[in-house]
Amino acid sequence: MLRFLTAGESHGKGLIGIIEGMPSGLTISKEFINHELKRRQQGYGRGGRMKIESDEVEFLSGIRWGKTLGSPITLFIKNRDWQNWEKAMNDDPAFDASIPPVTKPRPGHADLPGIIKYNHSDIRNVLERSSARETAMRVAIGALAKQFLKEFNIQIGSFVIKIGSAGLDVSTFKLNEKDLIKFSKMADSSSVRCPFSDIEKEMIKVIDKAMKTGDSVGGGFLVFATNVPIGLGSYVHWDRKLDGIIAGAMMSIQAIKAVEIGDGVKLGNEFGSKLMDEIFYKKKFFRKTNHMGGIEGGMSNGMPIIVKATMKPIPTLRKPLKSVDIFTKETVEATYERSDICAVPSASIIGESVLAWCIAQAFLEKFGGDSIAEIRASYDFYQNTLK
Amino acid sequence: MLRFLTAGESHGKGLIGIIEGMPSGLTISKEFINHELKRRQQGYGRGGRMKIESDEVEFLSGIRWGKTLGSPITLFIKNRDWQNWEKAMNDDPAFDASIPPVTKPRPGHADLPGIIKYNHSDIRNVLERSSARETAMRVAIGALAKQFLKEFNIQIGSFVIKIGSAGLDVSTFKLNEKDLIKFSKMADSSSVRCPFSDIEKEMIKVIDKAMKTGDSVGGGFLVFATNVPIGLGSYVHWDRKLDGIIAGAMMSIQAIKAVEIGDGVKLGNEFGSKLMDEIFYKKKFFRKTNHMGGIEGGMSNGMPIIVKATMKPIPTLRKPLKSVDIFTKETVEATYERSDICAVPSASIIGESVLAWCIAQAFLEKFGGDSIAEIRASYDFYQNTLK
Amino acid sequence: MLRFLTAGESHGKGLIGIIEGMPSGLTISKEFINHELKRRQQGYGRGGRMKIESDEVEFLSGIRWGKTLGSPITLFIKNRDWQNWEKAMNDDPAFDASIPPVTKPRPGHADLPGIIKYNHSDIRNVLERSSARETAMRVAIGALAKQFLKEFNIQIGSFVIKIGSAGLDVSTFKLNEKDLIKFSKMADSSSVRCPFSDIEKEMIKVIDKAMKTGDSVGGGFLVFATNVPIGLGSYVHWDRKLDGIIAGAMMSIQAIKAVEIGDGVKLGNEFGSKLMDEIFYKKKFFRKTNHMGGIEGGMSNGMPIIVKATMKPIPTLRKPLKSVDIFTKETVEATYERSDICAVPSASIIGESVLAWCIAQAFLEKFGGDSIAEIRASYDFYQNTLK
Amino acid sequence: MLRFLTAGESHGKGLIGIIEGMPSGLTISKEFINHELKRRQQGYGRGGRMKIESDEVEFLSGIRWGKTLGSPITLFIKNRDWQNWEKAMNDDPAFDASIPPVTKPRPGHADLPGIIKYNHSDIRNVLERSSARETAMRVAIGALAKQFLKEFNIQIGSFVIKIGSAGLDVSTFKLNEKDLIKFSKMADSSSVRCPFSDIEKEMIKVIDKAMKTGDSVGGGFLVFATNVPIGLGSYVHWDRKLDGIIAGAMMSIQAIKAVEIGDGVKLGNEFGSKLMDEIFYKKKFFRKTNHMGGIEGGMSNGMPIIVKATMKPIPTLRKPLKSVDIFTKETVEATYERSDICAVPSASIIGESVLAWCIAQAFLEKFGGDSIAEIRASYDFYQNTLK
Repeated sequence: MLRFLTAGESHGKGLIGIIEGMPSGLTISKEFINHELKRRQQGYGRGGRMKIESDEVEFLSGIRWGKTLGSPITLFIKNRDWQNWEKAMNDDPAFDASIPPVTKPRPGHADLPGIIKYNHSDIRNVLERSSARETAMRVAIGALAKQFLKEFNIQIGSFVIKIGSAGLDVSTFKLNEKDLIKFSKMADSSSVRCPFSDIEKEMIKVIDKAMKTGDSVGGGFLVFATNVPIGLGSYVHWDRKLDGIIAGAMMSIQAIKAVEIGDGVKLGNEFGSKLMDEIFYKKKFFRKTNHMGGIEGGMSNGMPIIVKATMKPIPTLRKPLKSVDIFTKETVEATYERSDICAVPSASIIGESVLAWCIAQAFLEKFGGDSIAEIRASYDFYQNTLK
Repeated sequence: MLRFLTAGESHGKGLIGIIEGMPSGLTISKEFINHELKRRQQGYGRGGRMKIESDEVEFLSGIRWGKTLGSPITLFIKNRDWQNWEKAMNDDPAFDASIPPVTKPRPGHADLPGIIKYNHSDIRNVLERSSARETAMRVAIGALAKQFLKEFNIQIGSFVIKIGSAGLDVSTFKLNEKDLIKFSKMADSSSVRCPFSDIEKEMIKVIDKAMKTGDSVGGGFLVFATNVPIGLGSYVHWDRKLDGIIAGAMMSIQAIKAVEIGDGVKLGNEFGSKLMDEIFYKKKFFRKTNHMGGIEGGMSNGMPIIVKATMKPIPTLRKPLKSVDIFTKETVEATYERSDICAVPSASIIGESVLAWCIAQAFLEKFGGDSIAEIRASYDFYQNTLK
Repeated sequence: MLRFLTAGESHGKGLIGIIEGMPSGLTISKEFINHELKRRQQGYGRGGRMKIESDEVEFLSGIRWGKTLGSPITLFIKNRDWQNWEKAMNDDPAFDASIPPVTKPRPGHADLPGIIKYNHSDIRNVLERSSARETAMRVAIGALAKQFLKEFNIQIGSFVIKIGSAGLDVSTFKLNEKDLIKFSKMADSSSVRCPFSDIEKEMIKVIDKAMKTGDSVGGGFLVFATNVPIGLGSYVHWDRKLDGIIAGAMMSIQAIKAVEIGDGVKLGNEFGSKLMDEIFYKKKFFRKTNHMGGIEGGMSNGMPIIVKATMKPIPTLRKPLKSVDIFTKETVEATYERSDICAVPSASIIGESVLAWCIAQAFLEKFGGDSIAEIRASYDFYQNTLK
Repeated sequence: MLRFLTAGESHGKGLIGIIEGMPSGLTISKEFINHELKRRQQGYGRGGRMKIESDEVEFLSGIRWGKTLGSPITLFIKNRDWQNWEKAMNDDPAFDASIPPVTKPRPGHADLPGIIKYNHSDIRNVLERSSARETAMRVAIGALAKQFLKEFNIQIGSFVIKIGSAGLDVSTFKLNEKDLIKFSKMADSSSVRCPFSDIEKEMIKVIDKAMKTGDSVGGGFLVFATNVPIGLGSYVHWDRKLDGIIAGAMMSIQAIKAVEIGDGVKLGNEFGSKLMDEIFYKKKFFRKTNHMGGIEGGMSNGMPIIVKATMKPIPTLRKPLKSVDIFTKETVEATYERSDICAVPSASIIGESVLAWCIAQAFLEKFGGDSIAEIRASYDFYQNTLK
C-alpha cells in the first residue's frame, strides 16, 4: 500500500513529504525531480514569488546510492525565503503576536471557513497551509511515481486546453498515444503549455488582459497516461474504481472545480451508438476510438487514460473584492498578497503528478511485490497471459 | 469513522450492505428507505427489469425497535427474480458450467477489462457485479445517511439538467436554498426529474428518439445539500478535502464521467473578478452568490453544496456494437441484455445518496460522538461559537 | 487489500460478514466452513446455547459454482433461535419497550462502559453485540482465509495449553512443523483441545470444579501457521509489522488478555545467548530453534509462526457478582444469562481463524494479484529467487 | 483521524515524523519533547551510541508561536553523527559500493528476512531502518500525544518490572492511580526504571553479569494511563477495540514479544469469581480492583489502563552467534555492531509513548473536534452526562 503525508507552511522552513510503500531497488534521479519542480514553477502569468524560488529537493531518508531502500522516503524542499519569515512563522512562543494578524478573509480561499473550523483568530494560521505552495511537494512525490512508472514504460504528460475564453475542444481530436506524447512535449516549450500556436497566442492575450485589469483567469488542462496495463482499479467495490480514485485526487488540487474522464461532459450530449469504443482484435484486443478516456467499469482498458480538469481563476485579485473584517465585522477589501494571474500551466504539471501517483498506487495494488525485480516478474506474467 | 461495504450480484440472492460507525439512538424509518429505493427505480426510459422489481429493504442487524444501536447495520435487498437464476448463479459447484458462458464483451462496460483482470472465462462472472444494480444498495445506505443528516436539518436533493441534446445551463440561475429544495420537489413529479416543463418535454423527445432507433442516451444532473455547517472537510491534507471526497465518490457511480463543483467547467471561461463569492455580514457571514458550489479551500462554506455530474449513455444498445468473441477472437455483435435507454433520472437519486453519505461522514469526523445526543451537543456548541 | 466487516446481534436474525478483496478462482467448500463452525462450538464446559445451535453458513454473494468471483463475499449464519427473540430484538418501533430493560451490568463485560458510551438505557442494546457470539462469523471468515492459504500449503492449527491451574510450559518443547500439526490433530479429538492426555484430565477436573461451584475458568492456547514464506510483514513502518498485526487481531478476541509471540513472556527471563535462533544453511537457510516464534524484525522468517494467547474466565457466573442497578443505583447481583463455564477450546479455534486472516492479508499484500493463477505466479517467482 | 508516518535510517541524516490530525490550539513545549527523548536515552546497560547522541527535536511545520495550527506537524531529530556516515549512507549514486556490504545476518534481527523480502544484497540496507533508533521518533510523537492528553488530565507513566531473572509480580499489588504515578516518578530516578530498591539492585546485578559475559538481557515493563474517560474504544467492531489497538501498537515496538492487559497471563490461572472487578457506586460508578487493567469489552472502563510488555534480549551480542554469509553460504559469526546490553528501561519509555498515542487517537475518535476548545466542550458534555 503506497501512501504519503505532506507537511509544511507556505512561508515556513520548507515542505516535507514522507512516502511509504515504495518498492526497493528503484533508481531515483534527483535531477528529474528538480526538473519537474521547475516545470511547475513556469508559465506565463505567474507572480513574483516564482522568481524568488527555484525549488530543489533534498532526500532525508529512504534512498541510498541512488536507489530506493524500500523504507520510507523523505523529501524536503527548503523555503529559500525563510529568513524573511522567521519571526512571523517561528515555532517559538517567544514570538507570539509579534506580527499583526491577517483579518480580512479572501473570498474563494480557505480563509473564512478555515478560521471558523480551527477556531483561529489570525487568517495567516490558515492561509499558510491552504496555499497552493503545498503542490510543490505533490509534484516532487509525483516525480517519484513517474520514475516508478517509467520502469514499466508508462508515460504521463499534459497540455493546457483552455485559458478563460481561449480554448479548444479536444473531443474532436484523435488522441492516440503518439499524439498525446507529441502534444505534451510541444507544450513543454510553450509559455502557457499549449501545443497549438494559434490558441497559444489567444491564451496569452487573455492573460495580458487580466494582468492589465488587475484580474485573474482560470482554464483547463488535459493529463494522460499511456501504456497502462488493462485492469488497474476494479469494479467490485466503489472505492476501488480507478476513475473515482483519479477524480478524487484531481479535485483535491487547489482551485480545481471540475474533473472529466475521456470526453467527459460531452458524453451527456450524444446518443450512445456514437460514443462507445468498439472492440477489435489483431493479435491483441484494441479500440479505434477512446471516448471513455481509457477507463471502463472503473478499470483501465488499455487505451490512454485521459483526464481533463478545470481550474477556477486564482481568487487573490489586485482588483479589490468585498469582504468583512473578522474582528470588526465591517465591510473591507479582501487582503491582497502578491499572487499569480494565471496558474493553469502550473496546475497542468500538478495534474500530471497526481495522475502518476494514482496509477502507481493502482499498479502496486494489482502487482504487489517489494522490489522492482519482484514487481517486474508479476507484471511480465500478467502481460504474457494476455497473449 | 463511518464506513460501509456492499456485496451482491445483479441476479444473485440479493444485495447486502454493512454500515459501521453509525451512532446510536438514530430513529430509522424503513418506509423512507423503501421510498428512496422507489425513487431510484423510476424514470422515463427505464428497461423491463425495473417493472419486475420493487425493491424493499430488510434490516438484518443494528436496529432495534426503530432505533440504531451503534452496532453495524446490515441492509438486505432481496432479488425477487432469484428463482429464475438459481441455476446460473448458484454457489454450489454442482451447477458448474450448467449454463453457457457469456463471451461477447460489451464496449463501454467492465466486461473486457474485467475478465482479463480476474482471469475469468465467462463474462457473466464480471457483469453480475459491475452492473448498476449495485447502486440500489448505495441508495439504501444513502437513505440512512439522509435520516442522520435530517437530525441536523441538512437536506439533500437533485434534479436532471440534461438528457442528450436537451438541457439547460444552471450556472445562470440563482440557486439559493429555497429554490434548490423547490426544484428537487418539482423533479419528484417529473418522469425525467426535470423541474422545467419545457425542457422536460424536449428530454422526453430525446428518449423517445433513442427508443425508436435502438439507441441509448446520457445526460447530467445536479445534486445539492443545504444547511451544511461551515468547515466540513479540511484544507490541511489533500485526502481530507470535501470536494475531493465528493468527486471521488460521485465518479464511482456507474457511467458517471464528469463531476463539477458549483459552476464547474464554466469557471474556466471567465475572469476571476466575476466569479468570487464576496463575503458579507449581517448577524452572520453570508454570500450573495454561490459560484463555488458551497466549497472553498476543501471545506463547506455555509452556502448550499452544489455538485453536477455527467452520465454517459448506457452502453448496452439494441442497435448492435462491434465486439470480439473472447474465445474465437472473431468479430461479433456485443451481447445485448434487456437494458435501460436512459437512466439519468435514476442516477440523480444515486447522486443524492452518494452526496448524503459524504456529508454524513465529514459531519461525524468533525463532531465525533457515539450517540445522537452527544453529536447534537458538539454541533450546538460549534454553531454557538459562530454567533 | 483484504478487508471485512461483520454484523449481527447475538439474538438477532443472524450474523453477517462481507469480505472484500478475496481473489477470484479460489475453490470454496461450504462443508469446510461448517466444519470449522462446528469445531468452534465444541469443548467441555460450554453452556446450553451451544446445543441449540448448530451453525451453518449460507453464501449470499461472491461465490458461483464453487469458486470465488473476486467480488465481495457475503456469509450469513442464521440464528436458529430467532423465533424466540422476534419481539425482544425486532427492528420495528412497534415493539418499543415491549420487554423490560436489562439494568444490572455484569463486571468484566462491555455492559457498563457500553451503555455509557452509546447513551443506552437498556444493557441488552450493548450485550447483544459485545457477545462472543460474534466470533462465529470470524471463524467462518477465517475458514475462507484457511482455504486460500491451503493453496500455498500454509497450515493453521492450535491446541490448548492451560485451563486454570492445569497447564504445561510449551517453551521447553521443540515445536517443529511436524509436531505442531500432530498436536493440533490430536487436540481435535480432545474435549478440551489438549493433546497431552495427563494434562487433559487435569483440565477437565478444573472445569468440573468450576461447574460445581458456579464459577468459570480461563486458560491459554497456542496457535500456529506452518510453511509461511519468508518476508510477510515488514520492518519499514510500525503498522506493517506482522507481530503487531497478529497481536492486535488476537487481543481483539473477546476475553483475550495476553498475547505472546514464540516464547513470549519467558524471553524476558533469560540471557540473550540462550534465546537467539542461530542461522544455518543447507540448500536453504534454516534454524534449529524457534524461540522467536517465526517472526524477526516484524517479518516471518520461515519458521512456524507461533502465538500464545491467554483468555480470562468468562465473566458471567452463576455465583453472584456485585453490581449496581443503572437506574436505582442500588447494589444488586449482576444479571446472569445462561453461559459457558470454560470457552478456552473454542477460543483456540477462533485464534486459528484470526491468525489465518492475518497471514492471508499479509500474503496478499506481498504477492498482489487478482486471481489465484496470478498470485501463484508471483509466489513461485519469489520462492525460486530463494534458491 | 490522527495518523503519522515516520522515516529515517539509523545512520542517515536524521529521523523524520509527520503527524496529521492533531487539533489546533494545543500548546507544545519543545523542552518537554526533548526531556522525553532524554528519558529514552537513559538506563543502565546502554551501549556507546547513547553517549554520542543527545537527541533534540526540531519543528519543521505545524507549530507557530508555541501552538499547533491544525496542519501536519513535522518533527526532525538530526543524526549528530552524520558526518561519519556521509559516504556509507549518501543518497548520491556516486557513492555506490564505496563501502563493503554487510553480509553476516544477525539472528533475532530483521537482517535475513529483510534482505530476502526486499531483494537486497547488503544487510546495511535493512538494518539501518529496522534499528530501534526509529523509536526515538516514536517517543517524540508520543510526547506530542502526552501534551494533548495532559489537557484532559490524563497521565501516562511506566516502570520496569523484570530484567532477566530479577523481577516482581505486580498482580499482587493494588495499582491504583496514586500508586502508579508514584512508582513512575520513582522509576525516573532509578537507572533501571525500577521503583523498588531491592529489586533494582538485583536487576543491576543481572545486567552486570551480562556485560561481563558479552551477553544481553531482556525483561518487562508496565505502562499505564490514568483518568481515561469511560468508553474509549468500542465493542461493535473488532478493529475498534482499545485492547486490540494497544496490543498491536505495543507489539510493534522493536524486541517486544508479549503484551498483557491488566493481570494478563495470570488471568488464565484462576477461577473467574476471584478476578472480576465488581461494580460499586458512590456518586459515580467505581471498582475496588483492577484485574482487567481498565479495559472491559474493548473499552476503557474508568480504571487506570495497565499494560505489561515483555522485551526479548537485544540480539546483538559480543559473544558470537552462529550465522551464514549471504554470499558464500559459509558458517560465520554474526556481525557485531556496538550495541546495548539491556534496553528495557528505554523500552519502558517507548511503551509510554505508544500508549499515549493510542489513547489520544481513541480520545479524538470519540470526541471529534478540530480545536482544543471544541474538543473540551465535547468532553465536558460527556463527563457531565455521567453525573
